[in-house]
Amino acid sequence: MVAPGSAGRVLLAYSGGLDTSCILAWLIDEGYEVVAFMADVGQEEDFAAAEKKALAIGAKKFFCVDLRREFVEHLIYPSVQANCIYEGVYLLGTSLARPVIARGMMDIVEQEQCQFVSHGCTGKGNDQVRFELAFYALQPKIKVIAPWRDPVFYNRFAGRGALLEYAAQKNIPVFQTAAKPWSTDENLHHISYEAGILEDPDTTPPADMWKLTKDLKATPSEPERLSITFKKGIPVEVIVHPSGAEAVASTEGTKVTDPVEVYLTLNALARKHGVGRIDIVENRFIGVKSRGCYETPAGTILRKAHMDLEGLTMDRDVRKHRDAFLTTGLSSVLYNGYWFSPEREFLQACLEKSQETVNGRVRLSLYCGNVIIEGRYSDTEKLYDAEQASMDAIGDFVPEATSGFIAIESIRLKKWGEARNSKAGASMKPESVYYPLTKTD
Amino acid sequence: MVAPGSAGRVLLAYSGGLDTSCILAWLIDEGYEVVAFMADVGQEEDFAAAEKKALAIGAKKFFCVDLRREFVEHLIYPSVQANCIYEGVYLLGTSLARPVIARGMMDIVEQEQCQFVSHGCTGKGNDQVRFELAFYALQPKIKVIAPWRDPVFYNRFAGRGALLEYAAQKNIPVFQTAAKPWSTDENLHHISYEAGILEDPDTTPPADMWKLTKDLKATPSEPERLSITFKKGIPVEVIVHPSGAEAVASTEGTKVTDPVEVYLTLNALARKHGVGRIDIVENRFIGVKSRGCYETPAGTILRKAHMDLEGLTMDRDVRKHRDAFLTTGLSSVLYNGYWFSPEREFLQACLEKSQETVNGRVRLSLYCGNVIIEGRYSDTEKLYDAEQASMDAIGDFVPEATSGFIAIESIRLKKWGEARNSKAGASMKPESVYYPLTKTD
Amino acid sequence: MVAPGSAGRVLLAYSGGLDTSCILAWLIDEGYEVVAFMADVGQEEDFAAAEKKALAIGAKKFFCVDLRREFVEHLIYPSVQANCIYEGVYLLGTSLARPVIARGMMDIVEQEQCQFVSHGCTGKGNDQVRFELAFYALQPKIKVIAPWRDPVFYNRFAGRGALLEYAAQKNIPVFQTAAKPWSTDENLHHISYEAGILEDPDTTPPADMWKLTKDLKATPSEPERLSITFKKGIPVEVIVHPSGAEAVASTEGTKVTDPVEVYLTLNALARKHGVGRIDIVENRFIGVKSRGCYETPAGTILRKAHMDLEGLTMDRDVRKHRDAFLTTGLSSVLYNGYWFSPEREFLQACLEKSQETVNGRVRLSLYCGNVIIEGRYSDTEKLYDAEQASMDAIGDFVPEATSGFIAIESIRLKKWGEARNSKAGASMKPESVYYPLTKTD
Amino acid sequence: MVAPGSAGRVLLAYSGGLDTSCILAWLIDEGYEVVAFMADVGQEEDFAAAEKKALAIGAKKFFCVDLRREFVEHLIYPSVQANCIYEGVYLLGTSLARPVIARGMMDIVEQEQCQFVSHGCTGKGNDQVRFELAFYALQPKIKVIAPWRDPVFYNRFAGRGALLEYAAQKNIPVFQTAAKPWSTDENLHHISYEAGILEDPDTTPPADMWKLTKDLKATPSEPERLSITFKKGIPVEVIVHPSGAEAVASTEGTKVTDPVEVYLTLNALARKHGVGRIDIVENRFIGVKSRGCYETPAGTILRKAHMDLEGLTMDRDVRKHRDAFLTTGLSSVLYNGYWFSPEREFLQACLEKSQETVNGRVRLSLYCGNVIIEGRYSDTEKLYDAEQASMDAIGDFVPEATSGFIAIESIRLKKWGEARNSKAGASMKPESVYYPLTKTD
Repeated sequence: MVAPGSAGRVLLAYSGGLDTSCILAWLIDEGYEVVAFMADVGQEEDFAAAEKKALAIGAKKFFCVDLRREFVEHLIYPSVQANCIYEGVYLLGTSLARPVIARGMMDIVEQEQCQFVSHGCTGKGNDQVRFELAFYALQPKIKVIAPWRDPVFYNRFAGRGALLEYAAQKNIPVFQTAAKPWSTDENLHHISYEAGILEDPDTTPPADMWKLTKDLKATPSEPERLSITFKKGIPVEVIVHPSGAEAVASTEGTKVTDPVEVYLTLNALARKHGVGRIDIVENRFIGVKSRGCYETPAGTILRKAHMDLEGLTMDRDVRKHRDAFLTTGLSSVLYNGYWFSPEREFLQACLEKSQETVNGRVRLSLYCGNVIIEGRYSDTEKLYDAEQASMDAIGDFVPEATSGFIAIESIRLKKWGEARNSKAGASMKPESVYYPLTKTD
Repeated sequence: MVAPGSAGRVLLAYSGGLDTSCILAWLIDEGYEVVAFMADVGQEEDFAAAEKKALAIGAKKFFCVDLRREFVEHLIYPSVQANCIYEGVYLLGTSLARPVIARGMMDIVEQEQCQFVSHGCTGKGNDQVRFELAFYALQPKIKVIAPWRDPVFYNRFAGRGALLEYAAQKNIPVFQTAAKPWSTDENLHHISYEAGILEDPDTTPPADMWKLTKDLKATPSEPERLSITFKKGIPVEVIVHPSGAEAVASTEGTKVTDPVEVYLTLNALARKHGVGRIDIVENRFIGVKSRGCYETPAGTILRKAHMDLEGLTMDRDVRKHRDAFLTTGLSSVLYNGYWFSPEREFLQACLEKSQETVNGRVRLSLYCGNVIIEGRYSDTEKLYDAEQASMDAIGDFVPEATSGFIAIESIRLKKWGEARNSKAGASMKPESVYYPLTKTD
Repeated sequence: MVAPGSAGRVLLAYSGGLDTSCILAWLIDEGYEVVAFMADVGQEEDFAAAEKKALAIGAKKFFCVDLRREFVEHLIYPSVQANCIYEGVYLLGTSLARPVIARGMMDIVEQEQCQFVSHGCTGKGNDQVRFELAFYALQPKIKVIAPWRDPVFYNRFAGRGALLEYAAQKNIPVFQTAAKPWSTDENLHHISYEAGILEDPDTTPPADMWKLTKDLKATPSEPERLSITFKKGIPVEVIVHPSGAEAVASTEGTKVTDPVEVYLTLNALARKHGVGRIDIVENRFIGVKSRGCYETPAGTILRKAHMDLEGLTMDRDVRKHRDAFLTTGLSSVLYNGYWFSPEREFLQACLEKSQETVNGRVRLSLYCGNVIIEGRYSDTEKLYDAEQASMDAIGDFVPEATSGFIAIESIRLKKWGEARNSKAGASMKPESVYYPLTKTD
Repeated sequence: MVAPGSAGRVLLAYSGGLDTSCILAWLIDEGYEVVAFMADVGQEEDFAAAEKKALAIGAKKFFCVDLRREFVEHLIYPSVQANCIYEGVYLLGTSLARPVIARGMMDIVEQEQCQFVSHGCTGKGNDQVRFELAFYALQPKIKVIAPWRDPVFYNRFAGRGALLEYAAQKNIPVFQTAAKPWSTDENLHHISYEAGILEDPDTTPPADMWKLTKDLKATPSEPERLSITFKKGIPVEVIVHPSGAEAVASTEGTKVTDPVEVYLTLNALARKHGVGRIDIVENRFIGVKSRGCYETPAGTILRKAHMDLEGLTMDRDVRKHRDAFLTTGLSSVLYNGYWFSPEREFLQACLEKSQETVNGRVRLSLYCGNVIIEGRYSDTEKLYDAEQASMDAIGDFVPEATSGFIAIESIRLKKWGEARNSKAGASMKPESVYYPLTKTD
């Protein structure tokens, strides 16, 4: 038996649940002094009860840090600016919260002079990687205790039964809520569902699984109209228009401008209208395919609105270069847990520059799961020119110029076509000009 | 006055409308012998009336070629395999039909020994470029007459009045349907709306503009369930499940397998459930921003289903390399009109290889504008392994391995973190670790 | 006959040669008032003689602007920072000078209130495009007169004979230097050779064509040693070491620090040691393949030295993201003439960020056409850690970690290997595991 | 003490050196039956002596497999087709041999029914990863024994002294060649030098380190001329021209066509002329920066010649798409050890397609470390058209077309320029139009 506290001081990412409660007790058994840490990133949680429980189990101290504003401003909004998405579908809800929590923990680690951090993540997931890469990048000297990767721990507690037995022995109260047949992770941005029955990718999630967003059949029968104003790609104002207000450029309605309030307002509206559910088989960083279901209400609106405004205000070729690396690059940085890294700093500098012109307002409506763009406007960016775009007005445009353009663009193609046509049997029939059809039998 | 027919033979892409009817008459005036060409690419059209009209105006011959199967098999399905999308939103409906029509025209050009082709495209749009690049690539010797870029023509017919007057003079019947305040282009894949009132990007399209898809409020009150089977990324079977069939892996229902029927079936279902509307400000090839509204019913379902199945069946790193160039590359080739080009052949070869494992079935439901993935399954591709993915079962997995993985992945980050922390004033506070917030005031 | 000067005022990019002298006279004939402009971008040229000639022909004014510093600082050095190269070979010498010259011209256009600019570029080359895109981007209202694209001009002056006759008639002195059977363009950065006998891509350039660099057989028999210090990717100091100084970290020698002097020093050394010749078939912006020979003495040294220092000082993943878009992107912007464009501003912002850590010194030697890296050092960037890299010392490194790393990285590959091995006939023989050999017969 | 051979059968990658000889003995001590394996990939080696030694130490069997042809055909030539290069400099010599050796080992593993493989790679390098990923991909069930990552082994044999003592005890003959102060890895493609004195990146490699290529001062005083013919990007013929043969298109000389002979011929010539040395600080897969020196004689010639021929024969836009992913992608696959992977199969399929037109002959000379392109020719690919490229002949070209091209291309830039010029203080001065100079003080 080790002398209590002799092994050093640990900051434990504590959730109040069975796993981290047992880890807390076990760390004490192993001779550590434990400080419990909870991050408020917007999840639904009884923080006071968790504090009481942690201290009862033996934590020396308990910290609950409100990181919601930091989460919105430093993580969510850059991901909106970059249109971040993983494998074409996932809006990175869990990934975005991890750097914020890790940052909060390292702050307490410094303040409380902990030599160790610990967490309850399993050994197969992404979150252990995201947490630990962030810990090491911020504080290279920190030591990590990951019980679910330590054979001493995971062999002893193989299965829920062993945990429950240990909890009983340690007087850890266990709330016998009927366990859901899946795991969740919730924050201001999203909730995830995975594991359990969802591990069969052909199982349709039960209707009562979805927590944040309304079932489509229960959404309001009238659309909700709103306008979002962006400055440099950041949503700086939301106006929720009164019912029936369909007039173009309406500026009437409830207005919010604080970044967090903007986000909360969009979340509330999206939830009410059933916006933001997805279901995906994705590739984890450790190389395993995994199925996840997610609800990202406000994030879904913001991605669509932001991309729409880029159409109006971003130069075509800036966009082309941006698209070649930035969205995918930053999404992968986020998913794999490299927020605190030189590459993220590089990408974020590129992002800032790309967003300089993304200024304007997008009008949209929400209805039965749909985010419908209704119009967009910018009073500062003037790349769109209705007269120039017009099919009816010629304006300054000299139509013959296009003939020259096409003549030049076709030089290369004509050379190629001549070579093709000089081959034996060349004709204008489909079998001669197309790539062979994919054989599907 | 030129001798009739002395100028050579022209194949005219004829639509039956006012513009191309006047062009037909004008070409005859200019001494050309004109053969009229219509492509059936699935648009709603009175081909017989158009034929009659063309011949009445003076066309030597009239050809209407059914290109629907070619359109679906050679253009639409490769774009489904490649998840093609332009600027993140547009499903390329007009772009996809152009190469097919051009191919059909070059076939008749060869058969009828025409020296010229002509069309009614305006000088500011994408379609003139798409058509002509395809013409030149297929038949480098062809000469193109583009009246709307010829000052002799466009100065004479500046405005609808001059066209109407000329039509009257030439006995061209003009059907006085109240002109819509926008232009459309329709085919099996989609319909586009642009110009007119839509040129103000902040004008919400009127509800009665949308033609293909039901208004969301008028969609059925019950979801429709269907399963789509893909082979090498091509949809080879659709089963429409009977109402109420929610059982996993249901194979009951109406089944279609012919490629064109598959497409038509999905189109019908999507239209009924209001699936596929978009509204975008896009960047034309000629460098002008332009606003377009589109309905792409079946295409919207297929893109979502295909991407979902890739999640299950495509290797992560194949996907990563594919995502780096293929979707964007082929979309840009399509949008800009380079289907008949060496680069498209190259990209399509890459595409074929990437799709070899995209075999399986996706179950989904349609409801009020939403395409909802309900599950996916593959009996041949085994990259997904429920046990391996499981958070509950360890299986062969050695959790300590992840510790090693993280240790190695963090080497680089620790070096970077040490450098950061050695700087004066470094701390774990937000202002020290994050990129400065975007200034929005 | 137009009244002299009634057509407006033109700024003509004047070279003093036959073409632009005739253009000068012709513009006057056409009723323009002509201001002649020469840019000193480091080419070998008798500016005084050119001035005299221009004024004799009838130019109202003559401007010769020294743009060498601007050229080095604003164009060459960013291209060094970005490792710019076109199609893997060409160091963009001509492309880099064009924006500088165009900028200088627009400055005089503004000062002299010209409505037009004119140049002597031919209609098939890249330079007309580079010049005019720069003109239009800087001053959208400017009008360009490009005589070699104007049929009135090019039909009248088809062939050198017609030009000579016109020159005689206008008393334009023609210096009968034996014309070289190729064209050249020279500046501080490089000289190009193209056209004439070089149009056969299988013709070896004659030894006496090369002007800037010594023939390899005539280079010094001893290597020259130098050190280049970079700050944020910019060469800020060159030390030319005394002969025989082979000591590591030698700081003895002749030192230059002024940006232009740094460049001139490297140019002189490279020329003497025969560094910087290339010969390439490249793809012009207008879609034509063309053969060019180039000498880029200092540029060749700087690209190699800069890339070497990046190896020491740039983070691996910053580099990976940078390599995905920046070098190719900026090279293409330069080659095609889009320096004054939103995309170049975007790319340059990305570039700046990427170069923050590129601080240090590279030691190298020049010998018989070779640039040989001998060592590199940084006293501020510490990503390289000799102990960590060491194969002999373990240090903090825990070798077992790599086992975990490999275990995780192989999860995906094992799944793939199992699928492969389960196929009939799978073995470990080459024909079973490799991609089929390319058929070359 | 374990019963001899009771632990199972191991295939050991044996080199004949001290490390793997001790590992052989140690594995026997640990109860394994050991089969020794050597691959002949072109390195200089006394295979017979190694065999004798392995058997004397106690290996049950010894295999030496000649993998040179497989190495050239299946690994080196695809890397030539793809212009593979890592971090802009390294030609991947070690990386290319690993998959071949692993394939050979798995073949013997199958034949000899080994349950284990073992190797002498250290825990910090790339080669352990390359070997093991290949082992696992080919034979997912294999178990790897990596003694230098096993604390039982590496703690016991910390330092050369312990190994020597153990060798003495086991009667392992140790040849007291004076150890070089660096490590090497040699094969047909290259030799690498790293570790030891090279770990200081500012140490110039001593002249006597370089083994394969002649010192530049000792190279012949006359250039050597040769022609390389490629088919689909593969070098299928080399002609070494007789001295003094400078005639264009000379086909005289010594001709070789067998793939391996082609490679050996180029190697011999390149070594003689001092071609192929490099010195780089590179980023290892495990995230550590490391310094390496390499000689890749034939590989250096082939990369340059192949890229040159692509200039003549590959379409510009095929190249553009290819450059966006293929060279970097395949180089990274090779460097990191993923040759046997789904992504490599995908990339190689893309590669094959990209090389279809790379047919022709490149003429070049070798002189004092330089590979000088002298001309290139293709009798099948006709994308290059001397008349079309000609600055002197107009041909079919209509110069006015370029005016239209430029007009269209400048639409976007003019819009941007107007916005810029409308800002207060905008002018044509450098400080107004350029990106601010990088601050270097």
